[in-house]
Amino acid sequence: MAEFRPATPEQDAFRRELLEHGFFVESGVPGIYGRSAAFERIRRGFDRLVDEAAAPEEPETLRFPPLLPRKQLEASGFLKSFPHLAGSVFAFEGGDAEAAALQERAGRHEDWSEFQAQTDVVLTPAACYPVYPAMAARGPLPAAGRTVDAGAAYTFRAEPSGDPARLQAFHQRELVRLDEPGSIAGWVEGWRDHGLELLGRLGLDATADVASDPFFGRGGRMLASSQREQRLKFEILVEIAGPEPTAVASFNNHQDHFAAAFGLEREGGGAVHTGCLGFGHERIVLALLRTHGFDLDGWPATVRRELWP
Amino acid sequence: MAEFRPATPEQDAFRRELLEHGFFVESGVPGIYGRSAAFERIRRGFDRLVDEAAAPEEPETLRFPPLLPRKQLEASGFLKSFPHLAGSVFAFEGGDAEAAALQERAGRHEDWSEFQAQTDVVLTPAACYPVYPAMAARGPLPAAGRTVDAGAAYTFRAEPSGDPARLQAFHQRELVRLDEPGSIAGWVEGWRDHGLELLGRLGLDATADVASDPFFGRGGRMLASSQREQRLKFEILVEIAGPEPTAVASFNNHQDHFAAAFGLEREGGGAVHTGCLGFGHERIVLALLRTHGFDLDGWPATVRRELWP
Repeated sequence: MAEFRPATPEQDAFRRELLEHGFFVESGVPGIYGRSAAFERIRRGFDRLVDEAAAPEEPETLRFPPLLPRKQLEASGFLKSFPHLAGSVFAFEGGDAEAAALQERAGRHEDWSEFQAQTDVVLTPAACYPVYPAMAARGPLPAAGRTVDAGAAYTFRAEPSGDPARLQAFHQRELVRLDEPGSIAGWVEGWRDHGLELLGRLGLDATADVASDPFFGRGGRMLASSQREQRLKFEILVEIAGPEPTAVASFNNHQDHFAAAFGLEREGGGAVHTGCLGFGHERIVLALLRTHGFDLDGWPATVRRELWP
Repeated sequence: MAEFRPATPEQDAFRRELLEHGFFVESGVPGIYGRSAAFERIRRGFDRLVDEAAAPEEPETLRFPPLLPRKQLEASGFLKSFPHLAGSVFAFEGGDAEAAALQERAGRHEDWSEFQAQTDVVLTPAACYPVYPAMAARGPLPAAGRTVDAGAAYTFRAEPSGDPARLQAFHQRELVRLDEPGSIAGWVEGWRDHGLELLGRLGLDATADVASDPFFGRGGRMLASSQREQRLKFEILVEIAGPEPTAVASFNNHQDHFAAAFGLEREGGGAVHTGCLGFGHERIVLALLRTHGFDLDGWPATVRRELWP
């Protein structure tokens, strides 16, 4: 099991405040929390702002469950880059005797993993993953390309942490662009600027920067450095609970990665590239609470009007 | 892995229609589908009607992720009654060598389960499960009891099926009541009648009946029969794609089951009983599509006004 990353004192203090004010409900597992009505009110207010920002592109709305076919994850390359973050789903295999043994062990909180076998689903690691095979199944992409709004889906990362901004289960609001190679970088950088402006309107002290993914292992450092050099990933960062600012949104140019993995084609031939953006809902809610305080009625009137017009 | 249950010809024909009209997006795994904007519009319309129906009780709104602490599932008794339906989350354990082996096997769609170890989370099997330990952690229940609105959460059941109404990942809209023993049966039956009336207003030919849970194994039949005799579970049934009508909502009196499992107490002593109700969002959407057709604009005006006032 992934190693627990302890919180800094500042992160731990903020976590306690979130629990005391009821925004988070403790579950006993790091990074797994319930959310209050007030938390959801902020989250939905922000989500509506993304709806508005995306509307001019007239995206196609699709929604996917928090589970992905295992074969899609295998094809995506995620297990190569981030094997340590993936969650897979196992289920019971056996008859009456195995069920009785499982139940007895579980009742004592002992290991019952031997009665579980891997299923053909995994936890969705990023809300855009189901979009690529779904689009590939439709046949060649129209000349104008396509934008898909995958909504705010629950995603999973196996990284237990005491930092309330590093959850194991959290909402990513994702938009995906599928188009000709030359147009993706502009779309990604346009949305980075949109995002920065949007978070600025909410009173957040946000900055954008070139970024890289948390690739696994010794080879990972090289991949990360190449990603930075090519400016394929940007993040928007906000100070939540220090010492470092936290990424609350990311904007990614995948080049032909997903197109090659899932066989995306354009009408009349020609290569497809893809890009996506993801707003981390919970991190944005935490940034707003950290910046404006726990009393929503006391938030600046301009921010309240933006979120709840 | 759980055995695949093939669809009846009628179920299979309806599944194809849902895919052709775009309400479902195929994933390649039975019971795992994407949903279109129109599907979500119906689902959200229905969810709002439940909000309205619940408002007079002034429930406390809480939201939980689709993952539950493993210890909570172990304490709940679910693994005793339904070991075959539970999904557990596994994740990577190992270093660079194991990661390389995992990636190689996954790239060939071969078995990589040996590099996965059980984590301390499982998939939420019913949206009410996180509520009981959260309420127990608050201390004794107030004299007036408590109603919690757990929202429409994604739940998982390991039962791959060709029937589009039997999903592995689906939304349950759950309300939970925690109160003194004598009051739960009335709450449960009141909501059964509410639910029947609500679904009737949507033009569904719905009926309510005493029901039982799909308990596992040879001992299961006795448990089911005792549950029926004591009238502890009711379901609302609608004809979706035959031959049998499908349960679209359930209303459950748990007696002291969860109170005992999680140590729920009342102020000043006295026993706590609990009850819950769950509307199966996707089944209700399918029942509406089956009843009124795939063209939402052609639905009866009264139904449209109810869903989208």
